[in-house]
Amino acid sequence: MADARFFQVAGPFTLGQLADLCRAELSTGAKADQVVVDVASLENAESQHISFLDNRKYLAAFAETKAGAVIVHPDVADRAPAGVTLLLSKDPYRAYAMVAQAFYPASAPTEWRAPTAWIDPSAQIGADCWIGPGAVIGANAEIGARCRIEANAVIGDGVVLGEGGKIGANASVCCAIIGRNVSIYPGARIGQDGFGFAMGAQGHLKVPQLGRVVIGDNVEIGANTTIDRGAGPDTVIGDGCWIDNLVQIGHNVQLGRGCVVVAQVGISGSTQFGDFVAAGGQVGFAGHLKIGMGAKIMAQSGVIGDIPAGQTYGGYPAVPRMEWLRQQALLSKLARDKKQR
Amino acid sequence: MADARFFQVAGPFTLGQLADLCRAELSTGAKADQVVVDVASLENAESQHISFLDNRKYLAAFAETKAGAVIVHPDVADRAPAGVTLLLSKDPYRAYAMVAQAFYPASAPTEWRAPTAWIDPSAQIGADCWIGPGAVIGANAEIGARCRIEANAVIGDGVVLGEGGKIGANASVCCAIIGRNVSIYPGARIGQDGFGFAMGAQGHLKVPQLGRVVIGDNVEIGANTTIDRGAGPDTVIGDGCWIDNLVQIGHNVQLGRGCVVVAQVGISGSTQFGDFVAAGGQVGFAGHLKIGMGAKIMAQSGVIGDIPAGQTYGGYPAVPRMEWLRQQALLSKLARDKKQR
Amino acid sequence: MADARFFQVAGPFTLGQLADLCRAELSTGAKADQVVVDVASLENAESQHISFLDNRKYLAAFAETKAGAVIVHPDVADRAPAGVTLLLSKDPYRAYAMVAQAFYPASAPTEWRAPTAWIDPSAQIGADCWIGPGAVIGANAEIGARCRIEANAVIGDGVVLGEGGKIGANASVCCAIIGRNVSIYPGARIGQDGFGFAMGAQGHLKVPQLGRVVIGDNVEIGANTTIDRGAGPDTVIGDGCWIDNLVQIGHNVQLGRGCVVVAQVGISGSTQFGDFVAAGGQVGFAGHLKIGMGAKIMAQSGVIGDIPAGQTYGGYPAVPRMEWLRQQALLSKLARDKKQR
Repeated sequence: MADARFFQVAGPFTLGQLADLCRAELSTGAKADQVVVDVASLENAESQHISFLDNRKYLAAFAETKAGAVIVHPDVADRAPAGVTLLLSKDPYRAYAMVAQAFYPASAPTEWRAPTAWIDPSAQIGADCWIGPGAVIGANAEIGARCRIEANAVIGDGVVLGEGGKIGANASVCCAIIGRNVSIYPGARIGQDGFGFAMGAQGHLKVPQLGRVVIGDNVEIGANTTIDRGAGPDTVIGDGCWIDNLVQIGHNVQLGRGCVVVAQVGISGSTQFGDFVAAGGQVGFAGHLKIGMGAKIMAQSGVIGDIPAGQTYGGYPAVPRMEWLRQQALLSKLARDKKQR
Repeated sequence: MADARFFQVAGPFTLGQLADLCRAELSTGAKADQVVVDVASLENAESQHISFLDNRKYLAAFAETKAGAVIVHPDVADRAPAGVTLLLSKDPYRAYAMVAQAFYPASAPTEWRAPTAWIDPSAQIGADCWIGPGAVIGANAEIGARCRIEANAVIGDGVVLGEGGKIGANASVCCAIIGRNVSIYPGARIGQDGFGFAMGAQGHLKVPQLGRVVIGDNVEIGANTTIDRGAGPDTVIGDGCWIDNLVQIGHNVQLGRGCVVVAQVGISGSTQFGDFVAAGGQVGFAGHLKIGMGAKIMAQSGVIGDIPAGQTYGGYPAVPRMEWLRQQALLSKLARDKKQR
Repeated sequence: MADARFFQVAGPFTLGQLADLCRAELSTGAKADQVVVDVASLENAESQHISFLDNRKYLAAFAETKAGAVIVHPDVADRAPAGVTLLLSKDPYRAYAMVAQAFYPASAPTEWRAPTAWIDPSAQIGADCWIGPGAVIGANAEIGARCRIEANAVIGDGVVLGEGGKIGANASVCCAIIGRNVSIYPGARIGQDGFGFAMGAQGHLKVPQLGRVVIGDNVEIGANTTIDRGAGPDTVIGDGCWIDNLVQIGHNVQLGRGCVVVAQVGISGSTQFGDFVAAGGQVGFAGHLKIGMGAKIMAQSGVIGDIPAGQTYGGYPAVPRMEWLRQQALLSKLARDKKQR
């Protein structure tokens, strides 16, 4: 179903193969040798496609789908239309991810150095890298094998990029040490000076920013996101973090492993996240805070104090979720009462 | 009045010509053959200039203007200083737009392909395109006539750009089908992967993003704005939408016709806008919402539920505007009462 | 201590030299001829390093530091571990800035024009400029001496950049007149069209944007920040302003001298700041406002009215700080009371 101008489909696969690879259970009566040629949405799928249901908002679309097979949670299996084969999974979105990766595997880069790329002779480039037109790689940079450096990206002197890395079009990276399988999206800015200066009526005075950005393995950094290098300590992004578009990460910030940071979040300097912290869109964090492992922060919150591990916070100033909901409900009720008087 | 290093003025025009083209009525006693050589602000205009008044905040400047002519609403005509000719219009800002376009018409690009541009031989380039230094156009891309691709912009394989398009400096576009007369401003990012992954303690798993960005005609997309491609369905921007700078639009989002999205708004995945929705600056929208035709959302609001057509909402969570104003007034009053006790 | 791949240290210096240059007083018994080879954080410093303490959150690290010398405020001198020499300063962060600048002085650019840079023959380039690979400089641009134009940056026709300027990788500048010693960080967008159009059901109508961006001396503009040019008047950034990453500045905005604008702030069109205004992260300003000299606006606030000089405001709609704190405290108390009933 995907536009062939942009995507190449692999396969086909049988339902049995797909159920195996995503560890789902085929529904009773399913034909394991039924052939599927592509993934598709519930609305657009036809009988030779496989789809998925992960959000109850789309139960109506599920009930009317023409898909040949659907990956669903067992709890909603009874809502399936007749004739659809189900792949039952406790985590249908994860199962779908595996199936979609089978149909659309990430392709390894073809070795190429565009004639208009600028690669400093002292840079070390690993095997099988694709370096696009206008890309720039600075002196003594070290690029691992199978990296893809897209058009007009700029990699500064001395930067280290691990194997399997991808630097998007027009992105720039400097003063950074980056692990394996890291994707930096188009226009992201990694490693520039942080916002460090001593204010003064006779003029603000720049504080040299002497740290780096250190990024672990399997990290994704969204389009036009900015990550400043450390002021002295490093700015650190742990393994497996996913950072969305237009996020601001200040100098000396440290994210643990597997953190999820949604679009337009701002994290002020020296704040530290434990592992698996999740921050909703547009959240702002003051500086020098500690956010405990597994904490969740609701979208648009303003966090001005530490947050304990495992807690969900919301509002501004951010408080435990239930407290914030009570505040909102109370304010809403009082305003309604006042209107009626 | 505009700096000749950057802008070239056309004209001159007579007041009669200008009144005709902007459908304004000349005030009593106006000389239709009075010559005007340029537009200017109320403060800077001299007798050979035409200015406009659209915001009552500037009535004082209007009362003291030295402009030869001013476009105004009939309601404020009596505030004009003596000797100024008025062009009376029910929509003075729109009338001014027409006049200013006459003095500063958009210039058609001169055909040029910079020697340092990289254009894949399989790309189709229409007539009279200007392709700047370092611009990159990928394989099988289709660029319509009279497009302007600015320096170091990157257009990916297979992208379709309609006639009269403009891609700003350092912008990047991939996996996108774009209509006519679309302006994508410098640094905008169109078509990269959306924020799609299945979370898991053993590592988040990428969900292949198989949709496109489909953009209608006469759309403007601001500087450093990011629009992710769809996950399966497309991300769709309707005809005539105006999107400001630093806006985030997630995968599968659909905007109807003529929507206005002010700077730093974030729209989460799969949310749908009807036609002519207007979102103020820094508003955040949760995912999977439906925002009705003509709805207006006040700046900085947080929208976590559907909004009916034609309504104005504000606050977080966003509620009808009057309700939100009542909440604010009540809270302010209670806090003042408490202080006095 | 800084990574030699990215930073080159100068020095060494004696404590006497450093105390002189940062106007600090050596603590009793200090050896003015003690040699220091580098700066370092309190945690990482060893006996040959100098560190600083500026935030009481780090008193514990101060008490255990192995640094040879520390710059501190006299008030916390008694918390120093034995054997550490103190440099006493009323403004330890500013004193540290001076010391760090001595160890890591800003290096003057080496004259170079990358062979892949595109420099229009009519552009005037001052002495000792470094122009990186893929950089583009338009017709009639005027670049002062000792400028550094990083890789793939784009400078439009007619732009004026004062001496000592720095344009970061992939940044773009057009329709702008820029003073001396200005740093524009990677990906910043300066001078594009503002968000100016007359709305209408039959299509929004573009208003030509005929002003410029005029930037004073000693200004810093963060990564991926966007500053639109004026609509008729200019957009003006005063001397000594520091603007962080991902900030949006609309058309006709005027900032006075020495303003500090933290990341992700949005300033709508025609709003004016006096000198030394400070706006915390993610603040939003409506258009056509006047913010008085020295006003401070707390992070995430929404400002919809003028703010008098010298005041601190917070909340949405922003009110004087004490009023906002009272509102928050009251709401929190009411919600707690309600829970207990």
